[in-house]
Amino acid sequence: MSYPSKLIEDAVNEFASLPGIGKKTALRLVLHLLKQEPVKVQKFGEAVTKMRRDIKFCSNCHNVSDGDTCSLCRNPARDDTLICVVESIRDVMAIENIGQYNGLYHVLGGVISPVDGIGPDDIEIESLMKRIDGGEIEELMMALNPTMEGDTTIFYISKRLAGNNIRITTIARGVAFGGELEYTDETTLARSIATRLPYENYLVKK
Amino acid sequence: MSYPSKLIEDAVNEFASLPGIGKKTALRLVLHLLKQEPVKVQKFGEAVTKMRRDIKFCSNCHNVSDGDTCSLCRNPARDDTLICVVESIRDVMAIENIGQYNGLYHVLGGVISPVDGIGPDDIEIESLMKRIDGGEIEELMMALNPTMEGDTTIFYISKRLAGNNIRITTIARGVAFGGELEYTDETTLARSIATRLPYENYLVKK
Repeated sequence: MSYPSKLIEDAVNEFASLPGIGKKTALRLVLHLLKQEPVKVQKFGEAVTKMRRDIKFCSNCHNVSDGDTCSLCRNPARDDTLICVVESIRDVMAIENIGQYNGLYHVLGGVISPVDGIGPDDIEIESLMKRIDGGEIEELMMALNPTMEGDTTIFYISKRLAGNNIRITTIARGVAFGGELEYTDETTLARSIATRLPYENYLVKK
Repeated sequence: MSYPSKLIEDAVNEFASLPGIGKKTALRLVLHLLKQEPVKVQKFGEAVTKMRRDIKFCSNCHNVSDGDTCSLCRNPARDDTLICVVESIRDVMAIENIGQYNGLYHVLGGVISPVDGIGPDDIEIESLMKRIDGGEIEELMMALNPTMEGDTTIFYISKRLAGNNIRITTIARGVAFGGELEYTDETTLARSIATRLPYENYLVKK
């Protein structure tokens, strides 16, 4: 594709560098912006630049934050003996959205993945250990994705905490509500049978 | 969805204002940018802002341009007796991409659409008339989309030029190469029969 203007070509290339956006979609977005008022497009550009430039990460849990520590860590109403360990900020948002969890978080910023060259030192494990050393944390709830890398990370953290008096839990895996047994994958179905619960628990949880 | 930071919320809202991008996709893009270097994100923001701020439109054909007139209008090798009338810049790019057309363009910036309140004065018809008055244009090739609005626009322009010694043509509509008769819509098939060509022409055009 040849572009009628260098300016358009640059903008298309920038959009096309985003995940899931190809050259055609990028061009469509650029031509849409071309029809908007310059001041509106400037607002777009500035919001994006400003977001990256001014965003801070909580020095405690590594969640995004407008200040030095995030609003979740600062909130005295939250249970600071319970930490939910997640991979990314998006997981924090997903859990916060259900409005049921009242503990704190720890954002690892990734999972251990030897294939991709990501070791324990490349993610926020050391800072998690420091939080545990310094505080009265009683439980670590591991909410990592159920992949090999997620499981490796959980295993590594549990080894590091061996001998420590901390309860390590993982969120439950099983057949989703609304999911049908027939269409559930074998691993999930097998695990949901192996980790079956007494009926009383089922009633309570639901 | 609640966002952990006002900065993120603003950026998500800006992305979600683009066509075909919802809040979930917008968040995915913002979280992707959050992982990039600030200077890279700044480059993104500036390319977009700069594109809209510095872009010019050709005073002759209303195509986008880096200067006062576009590179197509300035090119002496192009046939200035033939003007291809299109709706948008994207159409110019599509036609230029095949590398077969050697005339000039006129970008209307829309088509007449009474339903949307777009009349002849809202698109670049007056400037087209001026080009025709002032120049040695022999043919207007209408390459508008085959919608009611496109047809109305062609009809309006042809009426305005009645008595003028200009040939008005439209690009051919018919069954696409590679298309199968069986799956062609009725209107297209009917028109391709009504406007059938002598076999000699078929050989030449192909």
